[in-house]
Amino acid sequence: MKTEIEAIIEKIKAFRDERDWQQFHDPKNLAICLTIESSELLQAFLWKNADGADVEKIKEELADVLYSALLIADHYNLNIKDIIEAKLKRNAQKYPVEKAKGSNKKYDDL
Amino acid sequence: MKTEIEAIIEKIKAFRDERDWQQFHDPKNLAICLTIESSELLQAFLWKNADGADVEKIKEELADVLYSALLIADHYNLNIKDIIEAKLKRNAQKYPVEKAKGSNKKYDDL
Amino acid sequence: MKTEIEAIIEKIKAFRDERDWQQFHDPKNLAICLTIESSELLQAFLWKNADGADVEKIKEELADVLYSALLIADHYNLNIKDIIEAKLKRNAQKYPVEKAKGSNKKYDDL
Amino acid sequence: MKTEIEAIIEKIKAFRDERDWQQFHDPKNLAICLTIESSELLQAFLWKNADGADVEKIKEELADVLYSALLIADHYNLNIKDIIEAKLKRNAQKYPVEKAKGSNKKYDDL
Repeated sequence: MKTEIEAIIEKIKAFRDERDWQQFHDPKNLAICLTIESSELLQAFLWKNADGADVEKIKEELADVLYSALLIADHYNLNIKDIIEAKLKRNAQKYPVEKAKGSNKKYDDL
Repeated sequence: MKTEIEAIIEKIKAFRDERDWQQFHDPKNLAICLTIESSELLQAFLWKNADGADVEKIKEELADVLYSALLIADHYNLNIKDIIEAKLKRNAQKYPVEKAKGSNKKYDDL
Repeated sequence: MKTEIEAIIEKIKAFRDERDWQQFHDPKNLAICLTIESSELLQAFLWKNADGADVEKIKEELADVLYSALLIADHYNLNIKDIIEAKLKRNAQKYPVEKAKGSNKKYDDL
Repeated sequence: MKTEIEAIIEKIKAFRDERDWQQFHDPKNLAICLTIESSELLQAFLWKNADGADVEKIKEELADVLYSALLIADHYNLNIKDIIEAKLKRNAQKYPVEKAKGSNKKYDDL
């Protein structure tokens, strides 16, 4: 049975393949696309306080961010759940609770 | 029962809360963080061809991208599956198959 | 006689050419580089207030930003002074003083 | 006498001050703005080869990039020429000609 994330990726790929877009979607261009979409999300906050952003715009741009990120994951056959869990483990070592608690410092300054 | 994505978000939030980091995680800083992580992923491709990137680096940076993106979704109570499906619907109108097939143009140039 | 900016660009190109790097510096990779360096500058402000950033880091990253931007200008034979003045003229029309004064809105919302 | 760059910065500041925008231009927001504009420049290359970008768009976006970068320099009283020359010196040590010549590697992999 497909997981929830696999089902989402499948829908994204169906959308892409109907338009024959895979030819453009090499991972370098997908990474460029992801950066552009992240920047468009950030634009919702430009010259504003954190609570001043338009939530509709955020919804749209966050969907675009995830669209690109999931296509990159699919390209390299990466399992989203696994790579996030592996990252949390590594970060737990870089940011041990007793040192990192309540601190906004980077790990090499802790 | 929790969905797969809800379970991942819960792990991320447990990691954050053990470190008492929510105080820094207003959505403007999360969006800045997302842009920085996307850029670090893109760096894996700098001066290289699309197939020349280090997959281990991509794995790490993609996990960081998703970490930030999922915390933004959580902040606004956005359901990932719903916002991606809504976006695919809107994009299907902006990029109708008969016009967009095989084209790399933006919708306003189609 | 060379202008100040032409002299800076000449030094950057001498640095590049000693290392035989022009072969990598197509404008797409330069634009990727510029985005990455901008993001590294932004990182100086992550999780911090506007006045909390490390000025030494800002100096370094801003120099990298300008290095990439000036190489892009050089690639297309663009005159920095001219393109900025042309932009200010266009922006003066998009943001007329009587409408834009004291407002943080985008021109299409004014 | 003003240098060429000082004269450009003065024009940018006159444009800003006529609109009473300095109140929004703290350096964190300027750095966000710079990242967004860099990303818009990069968008000229998305899904395209390096030589497929629209030069008019590049001109516009590069002007926006420089506008933000010069305001950041002005905020911290940084001299553009000095910080670029200092950076070239540091980079000459990180990338000595005999090691870096013809190589696209990062300095820590040389």
